[in-house]
Amino acid sequence: MELALIKLGGSLITDKDKPYTARPEVMQRLAREINYIRNQNPNLKLIIGNGAGSFGHQSAKKYNTIEGFISPYEKLGFCLVHQDVLDLNLLLAKILLQTGLPVVSLPPLTMAIAKNKKLLESNFSSVENSLAADLIPLVFGDVVLDKAIGGTILSTDTLLAELAKYFLFQNKYKIILINAGDYPGVRDRNGKVISLITKSNYSEVEAALGLSHSVDVTGGMKKKVEEFLAISSLGIDCWIIDGNISDNLVQAVLGKPTSGTLIREF
Amino acid sequence: MELALIKLGGSLITDKDKPYTARPEVMQRLAREINYIRNQNPNLKLIIGNGAGSFGHQSAKKYNTIEGFISPYEKLGFCLVHQDVLDLNLLLAKILLQTGLPVVSLPPLTMAIAKNKKLLESNFSSVENSLAADLIPLVFGDVVLDKAIGGTILSTDTLLAELAKYFLFQNKYKIILINAGDYPGVRDRNGKVISLITKSNYSEVEAALGLSHSVDVTGGMKKKVEEFLAISSLGIDCWIIDGNISDNLVQAVLGKPTSGTLIREF
Repeated sequence: MELALIKLGGSLITDKDKPYTARPEVMQRLAREINYIRNQNPNLKLIIGNGAGSFGHQSAKKYNTIEGFISPYEKLGFCLVHQDVLDLNLLLAKILLQTGLPVVSLPPLTMAIAKNKKLLESNFSSVENSLAADLIPLVFGDVVLDKAIGGTILSTDTLLAELAKYFLFQNKYKIILINAGDYPGVRDRNGKVISLITKSNYSEVEAALGLSHSVDVTGGMKKKVEEFLAISSLGIDCWIIDGNISDNLVQAVLGKPTSGTLIREF
Repeated sequence: MELALIKLGGSLITDKDKPYTARPEVMQRLAREINYIRNQNPNLKLIIGNGAGSFGHQSAKKYNTIEGFISPYEKLGFCLVHQDVLDLNLLLAKILLQTGLPVVSLPPLTMAIAKNKKLLESNFSSVENSLAADLIPLVFGDVVLDKAIGGTILSTDTLLAELAKYFLFQNKYKIILINAGDYPGVRDRNGKVISLITKSNYSEVEAALGLSHSVDVTGGMKKKVEEFLAISSLGIDCWIIDGNISDNLVQAVLGKPTSGTLIREF
């Protein structure tokens, strides 16, 4: 069986520079593309994860939620970030459902515990059971409790990478991970998209990687590439593609020529 | 330590006869009352659960979600009910947060599995960890997967009764459960509120219990009373009160004279 984990970036489905502003027309097109993918390959299982974009990153920055909570003010901030990311997730869920995709919103707050900002424990049974029932688990970057600092943020990238490993170790699936953002891929020093990143060329690539321009509390492109490189070493191909280009997501998921960056073991 | 599980009935926080119509002014007053309770008794832990009212029961009836899913249409229905109940829950969460209450929405779909409409497995660690972090878990009546029939509905009443038992068995808490609805309590044949129900007078009470007038897929007053009677036998006092009466919730939670029905072991 095949399993595709699709990240719809916060930068793609929201206007990252305008607080609490979604891009519903982009969500609708992506929903149609995912529906098309499902019709083309009915045996493909899907997990969708969305970034927080201008819904979660603003409040997460305001309350510095990634660094934990002590005061009642920071605790309330943690809860407000959860509410913000759920709000965006439900907007997206509504559009996916309207397209006929059987998605179920599953907040990562219910699945994971961190310690000092690192994932400590996870329980993905709700994702696994939903997949087994032929539903499409819809996850997102969320707040999670943290045994050392109270709470923190678990990014969509980290979560999807963890889910990819979890399902890989079951030996049931051929897995790919597609990250659709509003950038054409990973760029080199000259702004040209690097079509393939492997362990052997990563040292060259690394120097060119900075942080993204907008507010992103969870680490930007460098962290993303490193997380994807780590799971590509397990045999999971990861694509970083421009989700603004029509059918780019379709091409990547269905294994056809795709413009963007492929992160692969060799 | 004390733990109060508070159910805000769907009939109280929505107009049950008008689809997808919330009663925000009622939610706001209840939020202020809960905030007042918390200030009066800072050592009291709270779990809040809300009914689905006219958000979830309409779609649950349309797709007959309580009876499971086989077809893609019923599966999509299951997902739509999840979306509907989340929508109402987030409206309520927003109001509770605005009042300063650190609530976190935790969908029961992530915590429980049923078999033939009976709860089979549950994992309440996200509720427990949130409580331990001094947050207020906010749960609700939700769809859950079902090992025999695909999916079904887990009512807020059943969920709160299960949570009450779960925390009781930890021997850390004195627990009460308050059900605030838009009815004055449990009525006898003549419409008079029965102030106390115990095992000894339940046979008389039973005959008077019918189903509620509005759409309620999860069983109405009789099932509610029976579930509460079962947990009252473990030593958990359960109140059924009219949440429309100002300060009735405050009185019940703080152990002061309350109009309504008390369900108690003896």
